[in-house]
Amino acid sequence: MPKTSPKLPVLDPKAVEGLRRTGYPDKFKPRVAGREKRVLGNALGLQNFGVNLVKLEPGAQSALRHWHSQQDEFVWMIEGELALVTDAGEQVLTPGMCAGFPKGKADGHHLVNRSAKDAWYLEVGDRSAGDVAAYPDDDLGASLVPTYKFTKKDGSPY
Amino acid sequence: MPKTSPKLPVLDPKAVEGLRRTGYPDKFKPRVAGREKRVLGNALGLQNFGVNLVKLEPGAQSALRHWHSQQDEFVWMIEGELALVTDAGEQVLTPGMCAGFPKGKADGHHLVNRSAKDAWYLEVGDRSAGDVAAYPDDDLGASLVPTYKFTKKDGSPY
Repeated sequence: MPKTSPKLPVLDPKAVEGLRRTGYPDKFKPRVAGREKRVLGNALGLQNFGVNLVKLEPGAQSALRHWHSQQDEFVWMIEGELALVTDAGEQVLTPGMCAGFPKGKADGHHLVNRSAKDAWYLEVGDRSAGDVAAYPDDDLGASLVPTYKFTKKDGSPY
Repeated sequence: MPKTSPKLPVLDPKAVEGLRRTGYPDKFKPRVAGREKRVLGNALGLQNFGVNLVKLEPGAQSALRHWHSQQDEFVWMIEGELALVTDAGEQVLTPGMCAGFPKGKADGHHLVNRSAKDAWYLEVGDRSAGDVAAYPDDDLGASLVPTYKFTKKDGSPY
């Protein structure tokens, strides 16, 4: 650690509050109950993309399995082990590995902590307008208007 | 490390070729000669933003000190120590710290390896159109048309 406290544009991520909020309908909230996000990008004043430092406790998921129509996503593993689930099955992510999810690629993904220890990763996603998220495993749809509005797949509300 | 080789959308960054190219005019190239970039975002198929894993050898700089008019930048320190130089002076970045440079903020920044060891960091930047980069310390200007074109500050070519 540096000898003095960092000042913007430098940030010590551990000084940022960890948030456990989710916009998911109630029935899906338990899946991300062990997820804690430090919203670094906003804390640094960035607007064009978001950067979160995320902790997943054992059993927790990064999100419901999903893909985005207009927005790219990137993940960098920092600590612990996570299973990345896609249509092809599972791969284990360990520190120093990364993963990327190009916009429009119809292959749902999420990270699941199947280990007994906390896992930490960095996630980056842009904020392109008109994004729609698809959830292959669940009766959920989401459109960005201007923040994500969650509905059932037929468009009806939860 | 995982027991099998990762497959997309997972990537082992060390499997990506390290590039030492720069578009700077010749007189500035020595400053980034010890800089090696692994272009992870492109390797993962991402388009909306770029992600590079960067190694800076002792004495090397991340870039000439600069700021962007339209594009945000984010840095995550992975290994080693780097000095971040801005108008306010220098701060030391150590592993697990981050920094962010909002578009339009007229405070030039770059990273300099003043240590005796290699340093590694992750850099993220979006690709918003119409970006102009300003270089407060050098007779250099850059506009994105469609890739960065470098000129002297008065617009004349090098």
